[in-house]
Order: sequence, then structure tokens, then C-alpha cells
Amino acid sequence: MPNRPVLDFWYEFASTYSCLSALRIEELAEAAGVAVRWRPFLLGPIFAAQGWTSSPFNLYPNKGRYMWRDVARRAGRNGLAIVRPEVFPQNSLVAARLALAGREAGWLPAFSTALFRAQFCEGRNIAEEAVLNAALREAGADPASAFPASRSEEVKGRLKAETELAKSLGIFGAPTFVTGDGELFWGDDRLEEALSWAKDGR
Amino acid sequence: MPNRPVLDFWYEFASTYSCLSALRIEELAEAAGVAVRWRPFLLGPIFAAQGWTSSPFNLYPNKGRYMWRDVARRAGRNGLAIVRPEVFPQNSLVAARLALAGREAGWLPAFSTALFRAQFCEGRNIAEEAVLNAALREAGADPASAFPASRSEEVKGRLKAETELAKSLGIFGAPTFVTGDGELFWGDDRLEEALSWAKDGR
Repeated sequence: MPNRPVLDFWYEFASTYSCLSALRIEELAEAAGVAVRWRPFLLGPIFAAQGWTSSPFNLYPNKGRYMWRDVARRAGRNGLAIVRPEVFPQNSLVAARLALAGREAGWLPAFSTALFRAQFCEGRNIAEEAVLNAALREAGADPASAFPASRSEEVKGRLKAETELAKSLGIFGAPTFVTGDGELFWGDDRLEEALSWAKDGR
Repeated sequence: MPNRPVLDFWYEFASTYSCLSALRIEELAEAAGVAVRWRPFLLGPIFAAQGWTSSPFNLYPNKGRYMWRDVARRAGRNGLAIVRPEVFPQNSLVAARLALAGREAGWLPAFSTALFRAQFCEGRNIAEEAVLNAALREAGADPASAFPASRSEEVKGRLKAETELAKSLGIFGAPTFVTGDGELFWGDDRLEEALSWAKDGR
């Protein structure tokens, strides 16, 4: 389809609500006739800039308890069971760099969904090389070239630039959806609204 | 209707998203066959306990900018135009005490919706006596008896007890909906889900 409207999908690999969106966005976007641009970034520097040293779900325990319950309910409605990993939030630096190394080759989305499933449906740690390896293979990528590429200055710079761009757009959490006309929608619960806006405008 | 399931609607008068829910909850609850129990409380002590000295929408400017935009979009879908008041967040202490003074007489919900409209549809300050007065009259209450009642030790104690109960339920923001079986739903965007849970359970 030529000239399909584009929706930017800004996500953080350590984020539960980003996972919920990653596992359903392509089907919904396809139905809406919208193209999704997958844009992993790091929330850590954005949280740190506002004085948070960890996830708000750890800093504010009631909010954290609620989040796990809410995520489980939402996932359940989509037929998914959430497995809470031992480590939360996880270190997502290598995951994000690997994903951006696969941008041109096209395996960025498939790698991302495989990794989200590993983390929040199987309880794995995405900072571990074996977990990253399996997700790369699942996405049809070659770990032997993907890992070195992820450590290149170019890819490291890409992630820094994407995170800076997210910050300059006013993004403060993940997932955030941004339409072609610059409208922001924050949270998995705004995905449908974002797609509708991308398609038809306000 | 006897034995209708009950949904507790915990709200804070200074909260924009509480306003959105207040202005639509009765119609949706009626359609779902659910009875709403209106429970005003104060978020201030709960925010203070986690180190916040103001609304998170003021503490985190990007989050605040987004909130006003999101609230305007959501209100627009319901045919409402939001007017941003000069003061935000407003002092809601007297408003909450007045509302609780009207619990038995039955004008608590009508007073609350009138006050939310004054604040976020007309940009008024709900700490002002004239604004409170008008909302009381609109709800069919007598200001000459409502104000003294709101200053009684009994009503002051009610508000403290309600806020303590909210805290002990794990409530960390507003609006929060709580079903008879103790399920929490946070945010105007969870209202439909909360009503459905109250009606049918999970």
C-alpha cells in the first residue's frame, strides 16, 4: 500500500506496557491501514533527568503492585499470561542496540516481539546473551554479525540519537505513539486511539 | 433494582481525570446495572507520603503538558470542552468536606458534578465560597446548613477516615474504582472495565 500513514511506536524493552503493545500493534495497524515504525529507546536517561533512580513501579510500591495486576488483566484479555521476571526493570541497553542494528535488515520488529515474549511471558532476563541469541534466531537474524554490529559506534550513536529525539518530543514514558502530525499518545491503552488519529486525524 | 452490584468511585476534586469520570459515570453505570458509591478523598496526604509536594503534573512538566492535551481529547470525544483553570491543582479540602456533609441527604453526587464542571469546564476556583455556594444550590442543597455541617468534627473526621481507607486499599491516584470483590482500577480510561468487572466479575 503506497502512502500509508505512519505511526511511530516508541518503546522501552524493560517496560511491561510496551510489551503489551508490541504483541498486538501489527495486527491492529494492519486492520487500520497504518504502517508502524518501531523505535526502541531508553527510558533510563529520561527517568534520571527527573530524579528517578529506578522504575516508578519500584519507587512507588502501591503503583507497582497495581501495575502488575493491571498488566495481567490486560494481557489476559488478549489471551496472554504474564510471567513476572525476577529482575525488574531489566537492563535493556544491549537489547535496544541489537534492535537498532537490525533496522535496515528488517528484523527489528520480530526480534523485539521475541524478546518481549521471553521477558514477560517466560520470565527470562533480556540482559543475558543466551536470551538475546534466541530472540535473534527467532527473528531470522545472525547473532554472529548482529552482536558486533550492535557494538559499533554507529549503532551506539543511533540509540543515543533516538533517546535524545524521544526526549525532545516530550516523551516521558513508554510506550508512546506519535502520529505524522506530531500528536502524542502515551500508554498501551491509547494504542487504538493513536491508530485512529494516524488514519483519520482528529 | 435490589442487590445491584456496587462500584466505589474514589475521586479527588482537584483531579482532571476524576472530572472526566464524574461527568460520565452515572450514565454508564445505569446502563450496566451497577450502583455507584461516590467517595471523595484527598490525594494530597497520599502524594506527600511518597515525597510529592505538588501534583505530578506540575512536578514533571512533560507529563503535565501531555495530561492537558489528553484530557482535552478525551473530553472532546464526550462533547465537552475543557477550560484550564488558572490555579492547578486547586485546594479541594472544603469541597471534599462539603460533599461528605451531603452524603446522607443524597446531594453528594450532584454537588460533585456541578463543582467539577465549574472547575474544568468554566475555569473557576473551587476553593472560593461563591463557587461552592453555586454548586450547592445547583445540587439542591442549602448553603446555610451545608457550610456549618462541613466544619463539624464529624464531617472532618469522615474525610480523614475516607482518605485513610483509600490509602489502606493501596490507592495512589484518582479516579480509582473498587469493586465489591476488592479489584482496583485506576484512571478514567479504566471506568468501562471496572463497571464490567463489577457486573460480571473477571
